Amino acid sequence: MFDDDTQIFHSADGWRATVSDRWDGASGVPNGGYLLAIVTRALLADVGMPDPLSVSAIFVRPGQHGAALVTTDVIKVGRRVGFATGTLCQHGVEVVRAQVAFGDLERTDGPHPCFESGAPPQLPAPQDCLDPLDAMPAVQVAVDRSVLGRLELRLPTLPGWVAGTPGGDPAMTLWLRMRDGREPDVLSLVQLVDGLPPVVADLGGWSTTVELTVHVRRRPAPGWLRARVITRHVSNGLHEEDVELWDSTDRLVAQSRQLALALPLGGTR
Amino acid sequence: MFDDDTQIFHSADGWRATVSDRWDGASGVPNGGYLLAIVTRALLADVGMPDPLSVSAIFVRPGQHGAALVTTDVIKVGRRVGFATGTLCQHGVEVVRAQVAFGDLERTDGPHPCFESGAPPQLPAPQDCLDPLDAMPAVQVAVDRSVLGRLELRLPTLPGWVAGTPGGDPAMTLWLRMRDGREPDVLSLVQLVDGLPPVVADLGGWSTTVELTVHVRRRPAPGWLRARVITRHVSNGLHEEDVELWDSTDRLVAQSRQLALALPLGGTR
Repeated sequence: MFDDDTQIFHSADGWRATVSDRWDGASGVPNGGYLLAIVTRALLADVGMPDPLSVSAIFVRPGQHGAALVTTDVIKVGRRVGFATGTLCQHGVEVVRAQVAFGDLERTDGPHPCFESGAPPQLPAPQDCLDPLDAMPAVQVAVDRSVLGRLELRLPTLPGWVAGTPGGDPAMTLWLRMRDGREPDVLSLVQLVDGLPPVVADLGGWSTTVELTVHVRRRPAPGWLRARVITRHVSNGLHEEDVELWDSTDRLVAQSRQLALALPLGGTR
Repeated sequence: MFDDDTQIFHSADGWRATVSDRWDGASGVPNGGYLLAIVTRALLADVGMPDPLSVSAIFVRPGQHGAALVTTDVIKVGRRVGFATGTLCQHGVEVVRAQVAFGDLERTDGPHPCFESGAPPQLPAPQDCLDPLDAMPAVQVAVDRSVLGRLELRLPTLPGWVAGTPGGDPAMTLWLRMRDGREPDVLSLVQLVDGLPPVVADLGGWSTTVELTVHVRRRPAPGWLRARVITRHVSNGLHEEDVELWDSTDRLVAQSRQLALALPLGGTR
């Protein structure tokens, strides 16, 4: 479903795509990470390097279902790194702008230091965890059109907000994968880091992304991913959200941080 | 010095600036954060909102001393957030591309949750800390032309690499301020998050920035800033570096993350 819904077609004006109605956020507009995956797919096709190393996006206005045009600008393709920008427009106005650095994550380029001080979240097996959809009030989620319907999430404990009583802890760890069995790859990681409910929901709020940067650190192995999500600082109606994704071989595969605007629960910008 | 060296002048082609030779990194090319501050200053002038909320940059090639041209594209100025991109070119080629979200950090826009689970680094008073310049081999640093000469740093203990024996701990906490007494503001924070020696130096390496995103979270109070700098994951010749800056009133004022390429000590891309 992800591959169908991020398909791009070359045209005289740029890459044409169709924004599906199967990847909506809670506010009924397409998920930002999904739109960003479409842009990244177009840039990958133009740059000719295998991996997006960093993807930074600004979300200028909400997207819509239906036709979209992605225009790209390849700035430079160097020996180790390439740079490009992409713009997703709908009805002639800009929705998402992205800057991407590309490279080859499997290339080893001489001796480099190797260091790891992080660790994947320690979680009970997925079958011993909870599916938040089982507990969410149906009114909040039209699952067939929601990004939550595309993903399978398993949490050791459910945050308070899922049952309508925010617990004041804007953090969670969980298992995640595509519900249709599609295995993770460097492109789907770009969607997945923005595909989870915002952890500020446990402070009684909701949020809309202003800026998102994801660093893709390794090509993920097949299987479940584990995520660690946390917001540490909320001030002036703004907060960051940090996501780490770890693969089934215990390796960090993506890190993201977004800056988001606080919204009333279920609201829109 | 910072204000003089980031001055911009309107011209028919865009904003003209002069890249000074007083903000070099260890490799003798202008510091990326300094170049990014020039771009951000031009964008602030064009957008007409007071604060950069997020600044994301890709560093396409090393900058040079001398003339630069900054071209800007204001994408949208909304009620709470504005978006723009800027490009710094020298000799007709692109050096830095930036995407910036703007807003007003002093605007309180209705009731929002407020939450803080972080804390500033706990450090002995600046006068009880060490100046790394006192211990650095002169050969590594031409201080009059280096960004290290523009900043005043005070560390409770010096990392091993400063004395030539890397200790294997890519993290540090420190005091910092501009050496000439210029107080911090939202613009200088953009430079400061990229103005420190990379903590991977303590793994025996050096680095060059591929992508940097800084979120400016509050307007800083006058006085010393405190920084927490850490690299957690080094793999495939790439690593992230996270910086937090806290002001003299114990508030988080900026968060940054960069993706950088590993380099041999003192090397260039």
